[in-house]
Amino acid sequence: MLLSANRPGQALCRRTLGKQVHFCSSKHITRGAVATMEPQTLQLPSLTGMMQRVKECNEGMEAISMLKPFVVAGKKVGQFKPEFVEQLSHYPSVFHVSECQVSLAPELDTPEKRTAQVARVLEELRDKKVILGWRNELYPVTSSFYDKPDLLVERAAATHFGIKAYGVHCNGYVIDETGRYKLWIAKRSMSKPNWPGKLDHIAAGGQPHNLSPTANIIKECEEEASIPLELARTAKPVGAVSYTTISPTGLKPDVLFTFDIQLPLGFTPKPQDGEVEYFELWPIERVAQTVANTTDFKTNCNLVIIDFMLRHGLIGPDQEGYLNLVRGMRNGDCS
Amino acid sequence: MLLSANRPGQALCRRTLGKQVHFCSSKHITRGAVATMEPQTLQLPSLTGMMQRVKECNEGMEAISMLKPFVVAGKKVGQFKPEFVEQLSHYPSVFHVSECQVSLAPELDTPEKRTAQVARVLEELRDKKVILGWRNELYPVTSSFYDKPDLLVERAAATHFGIKAYGVHCNGYVIDETGRYKLWIAKRSMSKPNWPGKLDHIAAGGQPHNLSPTANIIKECEEEASIPLELARTAKPVGAVSYTTISPTGLKPDVLFTFDIQLPLGFTPKPQDGEVEYFELWPIERVAQTVANTTDFKTNCNLVIIDFMLRHGLIGPDQEGYLNLVRGMRNGDCS
Repeated sequence: MLLSANRPGQALCRRTLGKQVHFCSSKHITRGAVATMEPQTLQLPSLTGMMQRVKECNEGMEAISMLKPFVVAGKKVGQFKPEFVEQLSHYPSVFHVSECQVSLAPELDTPEKRTAQVARVLEELRDKKVILGWRNELYPVTSSFYDKPDLLVERAAATHFGIKAYGVHCNGYVIDETGRYKLWIAKRSMSKPNWPGKLDHIAAGGQPHNLSPTANIIKECEEEASIPLELARTAKPVGAVSYTTISPTGLKPDVLFTFDIQLPLGFTPKPQDGEVEYFELWPIERVAQTVANTTDFKTNCNLVIIDFMLRHGLIGPDQEGYLNLVRGMRNGDCS
Repeated sequence: MLLSANRPGQALCRRTLGKQVHFCSSKHITRGAVATMEPQTLQLPSLTGMMQRVKECNEGMEAISMLKPFVVAGKKVGQFKPEFVEQLSHYPSVFHVSECQVSLAPELDTPEKRTAQVARVLEELRDKKVILGWRNELYPVTSSFYDKPDLLVERAAATHFGIKAYGVHCNGYVIDETGRYKLWIAKRSMSKPNWPGKLDHIAAGGQPHNLSPTANIIKECEEEASIPLELARTAKPVGAVSYTTISPTGLKPDVLFTFDIQLPLGFTPKPQDGEVEYFELWPIERVAQTVANTTDFKTNCNLVIIDFMLRHGLIGPDQEGYLNLVRGMRNGDCS
């Protein structure tokens, strides 16, 4: 049967002929001192389901042209919906609204002044119930991750401002004795306010602005999955994915720093901070089927898992739609 | 202090301490049945040199707005420089030149008719010395890799038409007993017409339209480096990079399918087809220094090597410019 053939050879066996995800058996070959094995590949009937998950990470983007740029110190640092611009226009001593952009009053020429004056406006908008879910947590506004923030705004207003948010996600995987990939999957607690009961990564989190991404993922590995520091430090940075959604409140451009951690076969992660109900080790085929055919994973986890499959050769270029999928990993402004 | 907090925060050991590329020593730790080691990281003083290599792959792009789209069957499949549009305008029975685009005569409604009529024009332009370096090799014109070609054109005209070209590149690497990365480097023969004497990958090549990318890289591994089929088949697809240059003749948008092959320590590649003078196994630090500080590598190899370093955690997100570098891996139209 064609699908049971492994490695593409002439690409024929990469073609999709059924509905199931098939697994190519590994074969050991030895050269010199190292045993090398033919890489595992997933035989997906098509990449359509995966591409659908990418689209879900970029929802509402057809409305992008309606948004007005937020320009601070000559740089575009965010975007507003027209409804929110209308609200800001009532505070002309802080926000200058013109035909093509929103900027701040020129006398607000330091981050500290901007932060203070904008906070005053946002508190009023909170009291008017324009901004909901106040967190009392300040978020940096910047045109790129490594720049100093131009100001800080209350986190509940981040989406209204269309500010880029950053996170860290880690794929916790195992390669078993036969060379097959497995991925540790977390089931989110039903009591979590966001995405209750959804499937998640072994460790992930928002990126605070006073911690490095690497220090952050190590902390998340320890806090969320009880991975000891010595082991957590073996997490490898492997790039970034980005996506942008437009929600009722505004633009949400996200950048996730991605990490892989190869865990020893005997290691079992344990929930620690109450955010995770349980962890399970899934064969990569089950992960692929769940990503392709369901929305069981927290939306952005799908992107990070697809990126993992692309980087580890589990999905290959002989399959139609491969380049679209590769490109879909960074649909958002990755800066 | 709130605003001056540098993101990198805790990651002091990732910081750059001098002008040299430093190596973080690996430390073995054992969990369960598998030995895991702290990942190797390169301590680059900055990512500026790497970013410069990315820019060199995307040269001349400031002139992009001067180009006129080539539209076939309603899809943009290429772009022309104004000088070449002027030439095409002398053949109104084949090329329809309007204010905003160049299209083909509507009666050319099959790939075969288009190929034949365009060939007729191109032969005249060859005889007029407008098109140089005629190859007698047909190139597919398509809006994306997996689409059927809308027509075929002589390869020497590809850049005049701004047609996307595809290639395959393979990083041949070794991880030594202490967990350090080494990369096999090829020195291109001085007698090669293109890029003589430049450094190159262990195997790479253009992508013919009658072969799958995977079959192609296996073929290149065998032909260029004498890697036996059984070993060549262990090459893993790991994504794609893309870049676009504007040269004197026109636009050159390239997409490279990338592969990694982990070679056994005892294996030595051998030149076979006369294209490579010799192969050398370099510590990854030497590769990084050469990429960052020289133009010794064939231009697009730099991109594929940087992508390798990003995917293998050799460059990390705590370093300023990381996201720019990540984004720079697919500056071109990756479709």
